Amino acid sequence: MNFVKMHGLGNDFIIFEKKELGNKDWSDIAKKVCDRHIGIGADGILIVEESSCADIKMTIINSDGSLAEMCGNGLRCFSKYVYEKGIVKKQNFKVETGAGVLEVIFTLENDNVKTVKVNMGLPIIEEDKKYYRINVLGREFEATTMTMGVPHTIIYVEDTVDEDVIKYGPIIEKMDIFKKGTNVNFVSVIDKDNIKIRTWERGAGYTLACGTGTCASVVATFINGLTKNEVNAHLKLGTLKITYDDYVFMEGPAEFVCEGKLLL
Amino acid sequence: MNFVKMHGLGNDFIIFEKKELGNKDWSDIAKKVCDRHIGIGADGILIVEESSCADIKMTIINSDGSLAEMCGNGLRCFSKYVYEKGIVKKQNFKVETGAGVLEVIFTLENDNVKTVKVNMGLPIIEEDKKYYRINVLGREFEATTMTMGVPHTIIYVEDTVDEDVIKYGPIIEKMDIFKKGTNVNFVSVIDKDNIKIRTWERGAGYTLACGTGTCASVVATFINGLTKNEVNAHLKLGTLKITYDDYVFMEGPAEFVCEGKLLL
Repeated sequence: MNFVKMHGLGNDFIIFEKKELGNKDWSDIAKKVCDRHIGIGADGILIVEESSCADIKMTIINSDGSLAEMCGNGLRCFSKYVYEKGIVKKQNFKVETGAGVLEVIFTLENDNVKTVKVNMGLPIIEEDKKYYRINVLGREFEATTMTMGVPHTIIYVEDTVDEDVIKYGPIIEKMDIFKKGTNVNFVSVIDKDNIKIRTWERGAGYTLACGTGTCASVVATFINGLTKNEVNAHLKLGTLKITYDDYVFMEGPAEFVCEGKLLL
Repeated sequence: MNFVKMHGLGNDFIIFEKKELGNKDWSDIAKKVCDRHIGIGADGILIVEESSCADIKMTIINSDGSLAEMCGNGLRCFSKYVYEKGIVKKQNFKVETGAGVLEVIFTLENDNVKTVKVNMGLPIIEEDKKYYRINVLGREFEATTMTMGVPHTIIYVEDTVDEDVIKYGPIIEKMDIFKKGTNVNFVSVIDKDNIKIRTWERGAGYTLACGTGTCASVVATFINGLTKNEVNAHLKLGTLKITYDDYVFMEGPAEFVCEGKLLL
């Protein structure tokens, strides 16, 4: 089985074309290849498929074998892959995802993809979840919850501390009030143009960068008057530029790591 | 740059042939490719070189860029690689390592390597370090220290608990009494034929399996009358068979994960 490994700000993926997988169990493959010691190691796998309603279809499976509707960093990696491999040779194209059809726009440099801008769609926010208080292990947080492709909860903190993400993230992920579970984004506002984010991802745990979570965080800080609608979001390994203008646009890098054959 | 990823009981390595690396800084390459998010991900790299005193030479560089003298799991992976790639086509051969020339013997199955048995050389034990007491963060442990390729300290515990490895391992690694630092092996004796081990590796941290540490642990339990001289050592992801008969022999598996080209 041929694969390519890529990452978007440290959120890493193994990409397979559907024909490579034959009739194998995709969930099982994801668990095996994503294992960071006895496999290649990644947060999830991305599968390239033909689409009947867009230029191409992306299926994402998390490292624990569960299906993900969408992942923004994954979509940037996926889009750069299908463009540079010549599978879809357009500067703008549409990708079918579990969260609907999304539009992708490239910034090119000598026909190489420099940054990928993705229309991440519309956030869905219930009025009573715009700003509320939540008690976790005896500590009270201010929060916002919305659907941005997948369910996201934003937790406002003075500073994003990894220990807090690991302590409170898994508890919040599985709280009864979130019927489908939730991703948990710990956000600190630096100024009107800049925020800092660390994310606990549903089904994947602590992650270096979560694209949909970054979008959801900027929507949350904007609607609550904490930032402008165009923000540089600082993640552990770099920056994503998020613009909220009805639709949410995310622009950032995607990098190739290696390509090869699986020998497992 | 072409590479192969392999693992021995979860202790994972990226293998490069020297000609692939050109005049690049090996320490820098190790740090980049071993990063588990923006690189391929591994505990270290193994470099295949010609030897003037053995059939082949192995250089090991840890994920933090430091040079390692020897690593038993690495040597099994390395040996299987050079055999199956046809670089050294003998069932018994000798490998030059930073800890001297070591002998390797294969168990074959249809010309594929099933297990690799390595003569890990002689342990060097100072009389006053055979069995002593050591105080770490206010807790007293019984210990043995020896050189088995690299410096190893064995800490005897009722049960090997990951939290203890992470808490005490890094402190013991850097204690002043160990001039070159030390690997730290937490060992619990199950019976005369079986022990359980978890290792904190100098320069690499918590590791799923440490070959030289496993050898050192069996030497330590044998000389202190706790086990026989032939022991099944149970690590997180499988078992190594260690025999101490003047020389220390280690037998166990090595698995291919993937092969490909680096795109970093």
